[in-house]
Order: sequence, then C-alpha cells, then structure tokens
Amino acid sequence: MSDQRVVRPTPISGFPEWSPQVRAVEQRWLDHIRAGFESFGFASVETPSVENLDVLMAKGETSQEVYTLHRLQADAKDDSDARLGLHFDLTVPFARYVAQHFNELAFPFKRYQMQRVWRGERPQEGRFREFTQCDIDVINVDSVPLHFDAELPRIVHRVLSGLDLPAWTLNVNNRKVLQGFYEGLGIKDPIAVIRAVDKLHKIGDDGVRRILLADGLTGEQADACLALARVRGTGSGVAERVRGLGVSSELLDEGLEELSFVLEDLADLPEGSVVADLSIARGLDYYTGTVYEASFDDDPGYGSICAGGRYDDLAGQFIRRRLPGVGISIGLTRIFAKLVAEGRIEEGRACPTDVMVVVPGAERRREALRTGELLRGRGFNTEVFHSTAKVGKQIQYAAKKGIPFVWFPPFGEDGGHEVKDMGSGEQGPADPATWTPVSPESTE
Amino acid sequence: MSDQRVVRPTPISGFPEWSPQVRAVEQRWLDHIRAGFESFGFASVETPSVENLDVLMAKGETSQEVYTLHRLQADAKDDSDARLGLHFDLTVPFARYVAQHFNELAFPFKRYQMQRVWRGERPQEGRFREFTQCDIDVINVDSVPLHFDAELPRIVHRVLSGLDLPAWTLNVNNRKVLQGFYEGLGIKDPIAVIRAVDKLHKIGDDGVRRILLADGLTGEQADACLALARVRGTGSGVAERVRGLGVSSELLDEGLEELSFVLEDLADLPEGSVVADLSIARGLDYYTGTVYEASFDDDPGYGSICAGGRYDDLAGQFIRRRLPGVGISIGLTRIFAKLVAEGRIEEGRACPTDVMVVVPGAERRREALRTGELLRGRGFNTEVFHSTAKVGKQIQYAAKKGIPFVWFPPFGEDGGHEVKDMGSGEQGPADPATWTPVSPESTE
Repeated sequence: MSDQRVVRPTPISGFPEWSPQVRAVEQRWLDHIRAGFESFGFASVETPSVENLDVLMAKGETSQEVYTLHRLQADAKDDSDARLGLHFDLTVPFARYVAQHFNELAFPFKRYQMQRVWRGERPQEGRFREFTQCDIDVINVDSVPLHFDAELPRIVHRVLSGLDLPAWTLNVNNRKVLQGFYEGLGIKDPIAVIRAVDKLHKIGDDGVRRILLADGLTGEQADACLALARVRGTGSGVAERVRGLGVSSELLDEGLEELSFVLEDLADLPEGSVVADLSIARGLDYYTGTVYEASFDDDPGYGSICAGGRYDDLAGQFIRRRLPGVGISIGLTRIFAKLVAEGRIEEGRACPTDVMVVVPGAERRREALRTGELLRGRGFNTEVFHSTAKVGKQIQYAAKKGIPFVWFPPFGEDGGHEVKDMGSGEQGPADPATWTPVSPESTE
Repeated sequence: MSDQRVVRPTPISGFPEWSPQVRAVEQRWLDHIRAGFESFGFASVETPSVENLDVLMAKGETSQEVYTLHRLQADAKDDSDARLGLHFDLTVPFARYVAQHFNELAFPFKRYQMQRVWRGERPQEGRFREFTQCDIDVINVDSVPLHFDAELPRIVHRVLSGLDLPAWTLNVNNRKVLQGFYEGLGIKDPIAVIRAVDKLHKIGDDGVRRILLADGLTGEQADACLALARVRGTGSGVAERVRGLGVSSELLDEGLEELSFVLEDLADLPEGSVVADLSIARGLDYYTGTVYEASFDDDPGYGSICAGGRYDDLAGQFIRRRLPGVGISIGLTRIFAKLVAEGRIEEGRACPTDVMVVVPGAERRREALRTGELLRGRGFNTEVFHSTAKVGKQIQYAAKKGIPFVWFPPFGEDGGHEVKDMGSGEQGPADPATWTPVSPESTE
C-alpha cells in the first residue's frame, strides 16, 4: 500500500460540502421549506440539470456564466452533447417546462422546485459555483392575478421565519414604477438607467450619477432618478412620496397601483418584514413588474438571500402562447453557508441512530437483530452493533457517535432487557415492545 | 408576440422529467428510502456534483463515460475548470469524502447518499444520462466487519419491500470465490475470466466458452468455470455444491466462508429474496469480496436495479490509510422510470392542496386569508383562491386541480363557514378551528 500513488483530494473552490452534523441541519431546513411550500398548495417539479443551450440563452444576454458538458471520450464526429449546459437558475427551466408540457398542466400552475444550480464563476472570487435554490413560481395563461405577487413574499416570510436566521428584510419594488418614472422624465433608454441604479449599493450616489450623466441625462434627470431610488417604506405612503417627486406617466401609475396592492395585502405581516425599496432593480434579469430582493439587515453587502419578480414573457420564448409568471427564489446555500461559516448553526448529531443494540456474543446476535427490528418497527432509528466486540467497546462506539440510548438484550436465558441513557448514565430494565425514552427530545 | 422567434423545447434524450403527478410519487419514494436508511442509523452525506478528474479516474480504467465541464465564456488562458467532471456514481465521491475528512469522522462510518449522477452515454441507446441513485456504504479503518455485508441486503430488502414493486431478487456472490476457484484451476489471469463470465447473461454459455478458449483456457478449465457460474441457491448448500466441483484454494475457502456467513445471516428473510448466484461478477467495477446485483424476476434483461459490493482499497487511493468499504446502490431512476413507462405507478395528485378557500369577494379576501392561515396552522395544505372570480369558477379550478375540499368563509356578516367535499359533493357547516375531514385518506 505504501508504494501506491496517492491522489490527495482537495476541496474544489465554490463547491460546498458539509460534515454529517451540518448536513443533518441542511436536510432539516430543506424539509421545512418543502413543507412550507406545500402548505400553500405548490406542487413539486424537478427538471434535468441540463438544458439545451438555445433554451438557456433564449433571453439573449445573461449575466450568468454557463457550464457546458463534454464527453471525456467523445469522438470528434459526435457533438451531440455540445449543445447541453447546466442550468444557472430554476426559472428558465421552469418556463421551458411549462411551455413543453402546456397541454398536460392545470393553470394557474403553482410549482416549487428545490435543486442545485451551477454558475461558471471564476473560482478565485470565492463565489459558489454549485448551490441549491428553493423556488416558487406561478405561471398562468394570458395573465397572472396580482394576488400572487403578494402571496409569494407571504410564503417566503412564513418559511424563513421558521428557521433561526439573523434579522432580514424582503425589499419589494416594481419595474413599471422605475420605467414609468424614467419615461415620465423624458429619458429615452430607461433600461440603461435601471442598470445604472442597480449598481447604487456598490458605487453610491455619485457613481450612479456619473454613469447617468455619461449616458446623456441632464443633471436634473439624474437627480430625480436618485431621489426615486431613495424612497423606502411601507403602506400607502410610498406611492404618495413617489407622486410627490412630480413625475407622471401612465406606466408609473400602473406600477404604483401594483406596488401599493402588494404592500397593502401584506400589511398584516410584522412591521418591517416587507418594505418597498425603490432602488431595487434586479439588473440584467428578465423581470417586467414586481421585483423582490431580500438581504440580512446586519450584512446587506453579503448580497441577496432571496430574489425574484414578475416575468411577462419568459415562457413565451418557447411556445406561441402568452404565459406570464411571477416567482421568488430562496438562496438556500447562500444563507446556510454564511451561517455555517460564522458558527451560527447548531450542529445536528453525527448519526440519526436513537438506539444502539449491544450484541452480547455471536450466539445472541439473532436475538439482538430481532430486538433491533422491534424497536425500528416502533419508530426508533436503531442499529445493532456490527460485531461481537467486548461490551465496553460497543458502548464506546455509541458514545463516540452521540447515540442517546444503548440497549442490552438478555445476556443469559434468565436475564431481561435493559436500556442505558447515555446522557444521564442511568440504566434499568425495559421492554422493547413498550419502552419510550424518558427524555423524548433526545431522539428528535 | 406572433413575430417573435420561438425556441421549441424538445425533451433531451436520457434526461428524464416527470409530470407533477408522477413527481409526487417519486418524492414519496425518496422520503420512504431515506427514512428506511436512517432507521438503520445511516447518516446523510451529499457531495458536490463534480470531482477533480484525477479522483474520478483514480482506479484507472472505468466503464463509465464522464462528462467534463467547460465555461461557455472561458478565455483560452483559463483552464481552471477543465479538470472537473460530473460524478458517474456515488461510491468514488464517498471514498474521496472519507479520505478528505478522515480526521472529523467517527468509524465505522455509515452513510447514505441520494443524489443525481451523470454518464455520458450515447443518446441513441436510450440510456439514462442523468439519474438518481440511493446508496448506503460503510467505510472503516483497516477492516470492515463481515456483518455489514449481510446488513446491507437486509436494509435494501426492508426498503424496497415498502414500495409496490414487481417481484425482484437480490443476487449475491463473492469475488474471492470466483478468483479462488479460477486460481485453483491453475488459470493465470482470473480477472480476464471474471470479465468473460460477466457477459454470460448476454452471450450465453457458448459465447463465454469461446472467449475463455481464445484466452488460452483448456476445454476442461472453461467447462469448470461455466459449471461454477451455474451454481445458484440459498443456505449452506451453495458452498457444498461449489466444493463438489472438486477445485480448491485458500482464497476459494475464504470466499465461501464469507458467502455462507452472508447467506446464513439473512436466512430469516422471506424465501428467495436473497439468493447466491455464482455467475454475478460486476465486470469492470472495483469490488474485491461480496458483490450484489438485483433485477426484476419478470425482466432480468432490463439490467440491475441495485448493485454493489465490497471494495477493499478504493478510499486508500486518496490517503495513506487502509480504508475498506462495502456498499450497495439502489438505481431509483432505473426502477421508477420503468414502472412509469409501463403504467405501473399510481399517479399522485396534481397539487398537494387539501383545502381551497373560496374568496367570496374582494372585501372578504382578508377573512379568507385568515381562514387559510388557521387551516394551514392545523396541518392542512391550504390555498386561498387567487382572485375574486365568480364562485362557480373558483370551484371549477379546485375540481380541475383535484383538490379534495373547498371551504366557504361566511358570505355575509351573519353567515357561517361551510365546507364542500369535492368527492361526495356534500356540503355543510364547519368550524375552521376544529374541522377534520370525514375521509382523512383523501388528504394524504
């Protein structure tokens, strides 16, 4: 063995991997989020990890780097895989899914999707190149009721409140407000302004103003754009403040009505959970109305932990139907990895075993197996020790793995079953058919 | 819209995708398998979808085609991703995981891992290029107790018996029996014989005999190899029949002892669930002792639905420690896709909603939302209708989605709550704080 070449494995930058103790918590989070999504009637969809490149690129320019697949042993003549790329989000695959299966789906189609996505980021930036997103989206034929724009933040609020996260805020805006406001100012290329304002939190007022002036805006127009971006609040005051800036257009009115509907519909949520922030633009993305972006209050620079919005013609790229949608994505790995790195996750157990059954000797193994079956049938995760080592070594193993109970089947014909609580050290007689732990929380 | 270019999406061969109704069943299967694995004390591990190519290739020759990743917009100078490949199974990544995290793990380390894997198969063969595997493995320092070789088929039997599958058999063999037998016959290259015998079910006795003779075996040697491959059965009779063939070697004795231990340990399982089949070899794979392979009784040609075995030096490729392991993998997608294609899956509901709350009018939406919250808090998946359409249209939507109950909040100040059972058509008064469905199975 010693003369054998060893390939020393090293972590691959951007591809997170957890210990069993951390993975147990991640799985609990995923289960919690899934149950939350289903409690609002969203159906599960999973799509392949890859899409054809023309699907991934259907909206033209994208800010996301795509990984393409190549067969290692492909011969030159066969380029059948060359058109496949790993998906960089779950919204484009979902829009494609709805278009492709249009005739089999009942609309409005409400789905959740929890999968890994990949982005070919440069490794040195310390960004994730593989991460899990948890998305909910609604796509409907012709139009999506505005109620959904309000329901999605409600669901996210409900779901994330059940996890032990540091304080966070879900910011909401509406692209129509931005575009309508810029049009009302007489600006020719509102999209260019949206892109500039999207950089506000990175480059500040002065930086954005410089870009806007370079783009040909007057100082007055640039100042008005920055004044709009400073509007932040809840309730009907938001629309009033925007109108107070003295700009008007039909599209602006439409956007303010939509934004106000969402804010009013969510007024019953705790103060400050959902806040209008007119600087939120969602840059290069495909959104056309409501946009969402959530971040941690104590670390807004970390970036968005949830994002989404309304896209009015994404699925329409794939079918001659109008299939608008609205959706929001929880950046599970972004959130989770930060808390892990900061030591804010209370780690789970090293293994899910509730009870370890001791094997007193080779000749009593069958009986130990039967005891294990019995306890397992009663809902306890139970492992039977894997050899006939000395009893002391068996108990040591249970201690090392953090197993809360050790079970002793009868050692002789006359003896009885006993169980040891590894936490308290107490040991006493117990019947495998009726036993329940005194401290049930230890088998959670 | 009509002048817009449409990218017609087409299914990508080898990348399965399910309807929500089928996906609901797949998720139920995954939950069932996970609970089964945990009930035996196995801990969850997930690894990145990619490994460095030298890890994937650590065992040299592999029968699996690997997909490598490339950034679409990579510049020529940056080949940092060129060494990444999607994993083709979960055993190699797990062996790498154990070596890499050696100091943080408690041994014997028992893990389950349920993830997608990728193989760059030629699409025209109709094979899966992306599919989900559900693996359990044990890796230990220096040696793995033989008890685990018996426990793994027991777990698979327990888990798959809970799914409604057509009859299947788990075949077990031991590479040491094969190798020891061939050595006892004086054959120089037992691995070549293992590869030839592995083709038995495809090319038959004559085909294998032809290869063996071409490889330089005598007719007598070839006949003995074929006689061994015909041995099949349970209990102690298996070893007796092999010994009856008149060949002996130390390795053969060792293999027969191991195989007999596994068969005897599993003697309490229903007759025929685990059967020794001495033709099973697992071809090019990395196994060194026990090997497993399960297939459907009525369609053995479909190939293996579970496979695995004991690998004595896989993790040792990555660390200067002896870290043998034993594992078995359930080919979830292989099994599931076949049953879907044959119409043997009873589809789930189109959505998980138990109760849809009617919105009698815009002014009563807040009350409908409160009713929804109340029912959701009591464990019912509840959606509140998404607009203020006519009540008839709202009920139609519930019927179309297969939602079992429709809830009517009070229409006026004096009215009360009512609920309609969409199955029976019955409607009557109900209190959202105490209501439970008469037929609880409809909200499963």
